[in-house]
Amino acid sequence: MKSGIIASPGVCFGKVFLLEDAQYELNKSIISDNDIVHEKQKFLSAKKTTLEQLEKIKYKALQTFGEEKEAIFEGHILLVDDEELETEIIELISNKKLSADFATYSIMEEQASSLEQLDDEYLKERATDLRDISDRLIRNILNIPILSLDEIDEEVVIVANDLTPSQTAQINLNFVVGFITDVGGKTSHTSIMARSLELPAIVGTTDITSCVKNNDIITIDAINNEIIINPSKEELHKIKSFKNEYILEQKELSKLKDLPAVTLDGKFIEVMGNIGTVKDCNSILKNGADGVGLYRTEFLFMDRDSLPSEDEQFQAYKEVAEKMDGAPIIIRTLDIGGDKDLPHLDLPKEMNPFLGYRAIRISLDRKEILKAQLKAILRASAFGKLLIMFPMIISVEEIRLLKRELEKFKIELKNDGINFDQNIQIGIMIETPASVAIADHLAKEVNFFSIGTNDLTQYTLAVDRGNEYISNMYNPLSPSVIRMIKQVIDASHNENIWTGMCGELAGDEQATLLLLGLGLDEFSMSGISIPKIKKIIRNNNYSDVKVMAEKALTLSTSKEIEDLIESFISEKSIC
Amino acid sequence: MKSGIIASPGVCFGKVFLLEDAQYELNKSIISDNDIVHEKQKFLSAKKTTLEQLEKIKYKALQTFGEEKEAIFEGHILLVDDEELETEIIELISNKKLSADFATYSIMEEQASSLEQLDDEYLKERATDLRDISDRLIRNILNIPILSLDEIDEEVVIVANDLTPSQTAQINLNFVVGFITDVGGKTSHTSIMARSLELPAIVGTTDITSCVKNNDIITIDAINNEIIINPSKEELHKIKSFKNEYILEQKELSKLKDLPAVTLDGKFIEVMGNIGTVKDCNSILKNGADGVGLYRTEFLFMDRDSLPSEDEQFQAYKEVAEKMDGAPIIIRTLDIGGDKDLPHLDLPKEMNPFLGYRAIRISLDRKEILKAQLKAILRASAFGKLLIMFPMIISVEEIRLLKRELEKFKIELKNDGINFDQNIQIGIMIETPASVAIADHLAKEVNFFSIGTNDLTQYTLAVDRGNEYISNMYNPLSPSVIRMIKQVIDASHNENIWTGMCGELAGDEQATLLLLGLGLDEFSMSGISIPKIKKIIRNNNYSDVKVMAEKALTLSTSKEIEDLIESFISEKSIC
Repeated sequence: MKSGIIASPGVCFGKVFLLEDAQYELNKSIISDNDIVHEKQKFLSAKKTTLEQLEKIKYKALQTFGEEKEAIFEGHILLVDDEELETEIIELISNKKLSADFATYSIMEEQASSLEQLDDEYLKERATDLRDISDRLIRNILNIPILSLDEIDEEVVIVANDLTPSQTAQINLNFVVGFITDVGGKTSHTSIMARSLELPAIVGTTDITSCVKNNDIITIDAINNEIIINPSKEELHKIKSFKNEYILEQKELSKLKDLPAVTLDGKFIEVMGNIGTVKDCNSILKNGADGVGLYRTEFLFMDRDSLPSEDEQFQAYKEVAEKMDGAPIIIRTLDIGGDKDLPHLDLPKEMNPFLGYRAIRISLDRKEILKAQLKAILRASAFGKLLIMFPMIISVEEIRLLKRELEKFKIELKNDGINFDQNIQIGIMIETPASVAIADHLAKEVNFFSIGTNDLTQYTLAVDRGNEYISNMYNPLSPSVIRMIKQVIDASHNENIWTGMCGELAGDEQATLLLLGLGLDEFSMSGISIPKIKKIIRNNNYSDVKVMAEKALTLSTSKEIEDLIESFISEKSIC
Repeated sequence: MKSGIIASPGVCFGKVFLLEDAQYELNKSIISDNDIVHEKQKFLSAKKTTLEQLEKIKYKALQTFGEEKEAIFEGHILLVDDEELETEIIELISNKKLSADFATYSIMEEQASSLEQLDDEYLKERATDLRDISDRLIRNILNIPILSLDEIDEEVVIVANDLTPSQTAQINLNFVVGFITDVGGKTSHTSIMARSLELPAIVGTTDITSCVKNNDIITIDAINNEIIINPSKEELHKIKSFKNEYILEQKELSKLKDLPAVTLDGKFIEVMGNIGTVKDCNSILKNGADGVGLYRTEFLFMDRDSLPSEDEQFQAYKEVAEKMDGAPIIIRTLDIGGDKDLPHLDLPKEMNPFLGYRAIRISLDRKEILKAQLKAILRASAFGKLLIMFPMIISVEEIRLLKRELEKFKIELKNDGINFDQNIQIGIMIETPASVAIADHLAKEVNFFSIGTNDLTQYTLAVDRGNEYISNMYNPLSPSVIRMIKQVIDASHNENIWTGMCGELAGDEQATLLLLGLGLDEFSMSGISIPKIKKIIRNNNYSDVKVMAEKALTLSTSKEIEDLIESFISEKSIC
């Protein structure tokens, strides 16, 4: 039995498809004059094959993941199809009598390593791309089969060290039932993808690839975090019935889709979904979201060489507005910096990026970014119910400044005769301790708050959650954090505005009743978490959880708070 | 007129002593056989000279700065005196016919650059040492005079790009009246040294070295941040009288030395000093500190290859205890990590070190560090009034755990028949938003609080104060921060314990009256700030500043708070 980090919940089993590329050795000896023509031919034919493969991958990427991912492979194709590259490699084969594979390696590795030495994150990443392509070219020259995920034609569990974007783009979703990887955490590429595909996945197992071989049978219980390799009959039987139970439960939950999240004693709660692109709307709508509680606009800015124009942004926001068909959509302005880099913005290298130049600090400093985004949102607000949310607020001055800018853009649009929602609501993320301490002042300035528990916990406890040395100290159920949450909710209610939450805690079943009791008005989470949270809310009395939350606020340790919740659930709740 | 960053306050003028080493070129041509003996002789004689120079510098370092700095030069001497080094250089002269200077350079640069490539901060630093020494050896071989700061015999202002430890160790304090440098900030080596020598200094001027030449006259007004090169008669006259005024004012202030910091209406405030080593006690005693409000023990752990033993620590703490002669001394346990590295501890490289593995997170993880330090403090407590303070507390669990450990060590000492203060008081730094939010719980666990405003501001606002891109956002007089300070003070008073402050805000004249009004019981700062702060406290009524502070807590912006303080001072205060 093995375990790791649950990246995406669910239960499944199947044959192992071990994603492990065969190794090769380069032919480093000098070739004879007779071989020159043959080696040149080998290169040209490999180039052709490579281009064909990449075209296929590109097409698949577009179908499965959309235009952003497609662009990656378009870039790869341009690199392979470069004439200068061909000339250089052919010359090396003719003049230095190198084999086609070694010539390709020499030229491309030289380019990659010189890129790598530059002090520019963007160019450094291009080195990785070059090596990916070089590897594919060499494998084609040497006729080494490249594992092609699109040829899988039976139900398999993919087991890999990690999955690259080019690998995931090819996966035939009809046959893959789950993922297990050696490395990665909850926010790694594989995890995000597994969640968006709603496939069970466990990552960070350290050594799963060295424990299995192809065609082993493997089970993934990504509820209890258990992996069994070649299970016994009884074990397989158990996992099958657990899988059926789980599916049944999910079906039950899905019936909640069209029911409101209302407590037994009649308090209505908004349960919303978090999205990154319009594609995520499907999952949150399917799961019964009341709207979008957090639209992360960063994805629009990623995987490209320049900023998206106002028009591009307008199109993207409009698409989401239309898709959500009148349901509210809270759009967060660009939250880049911290752990999210945008190479083309040329952000400074910082000692402590989480305490640095990020989010509205960038938007207020580089007004062209703010202007394009706010005008695009305003224009899209004519096509649905959009709300604007600003991240990383620490002062009243900031929000006043942002409001003044917004008014300016409204006037510009009005003068240009462009339609928009003149009463568009604006809100702020509460994710810094500063914003908590002055929540009473901030509540006078905006229409709503949304608590970002990840950052708020991180700053309150001074614990970088991504830091493995202290990650055990990161706990949003700390007395300090829940008191801050309460302070924010109370401050908002005193000014008759509402407080939501779009951090991970909002989708955490353990926390739901406590948050409900603290008076939270809106919960926003990823699609798959919605039914379960709705069910918990529908099965409890607000009057009960309120008493429990009051008690929690007096406790002095996280353990006591967790115990209180647990004993409440076992005594009162029927969730 | 130029300016920079005031590193140490004061006023002075004098001749420029430009610290700028003459450049040299290495003799890279092959020497003739006849010259071999001569070149060898040149190397050996330069080695002798170098060792003599280093011995002198070492002695001076001991006299001026104590044993820690002496050890640096002892290390340099060992490197120069290495037999293997001599053999290698001599062989290069004989066999490859290199000049003495080029042979020395070749060998030492090779060693330095291979050290530099290692992934170990400590060894990388040794590369700098090797290059320092190599440079000195080569200058001696080439008979290029080395600027020797100990030969200065008239009053000068030292102007340099920056000062190295080996340079500062040599300075003849009788003749140096001030410093100006191109680079550096408030916490750079030069700044710390200038403050501890109480010499006026302005750092970070960018280009002062290219604006002056030797024997120019220069004035430093490190109150108003003004540097004048070759002042006019009137300008010089003005600076002379300003210098006299300043000295007079300092004298006036020094009369406060033995007077208590008590407000006009009788509220007594403790004004304490911050120290790094026993040497700083002189400055704080001279300036009338009531005790040590913060003894930073990090210095004991720096500039060495291993942890200091319990005995070494005991000696250091005992020395301070005896020097302070019964006055209270708050010893903070090791606060390493964040921006302070200890190469020999092999701390992890972190993405956000300020949100990482630091302070008690290290002490609780590596219990041998905690044990040696707490036992040393306990043993020293038999020789004076020591108090223990733990940094970076975020939970009640942490302080309970630390108290249990302390009790264990007390029992061990008791069993060994060693004397210590059985009722030694313990306190915590309040420097995380978490500790503010649970200050009521924490106040039940300890004898005192001390607010660390630098970190508290940084975490509350999520602004790394060292980050130039956002440093304008760092402001401890933010409404959020002053509310947190108030919350802490109130929580402590409810449990009848006191709250002090040892961050930079405690010594900031602009903030004194507000902090007093918020109810702060103790201010701890560097020696030179004490008289001024005492004077402000003695010239005001607590009842007045309390009203002002109550008003400040209702304001929504930093600007309003700063204006309130300013108008209070101009209307009421006679400071």
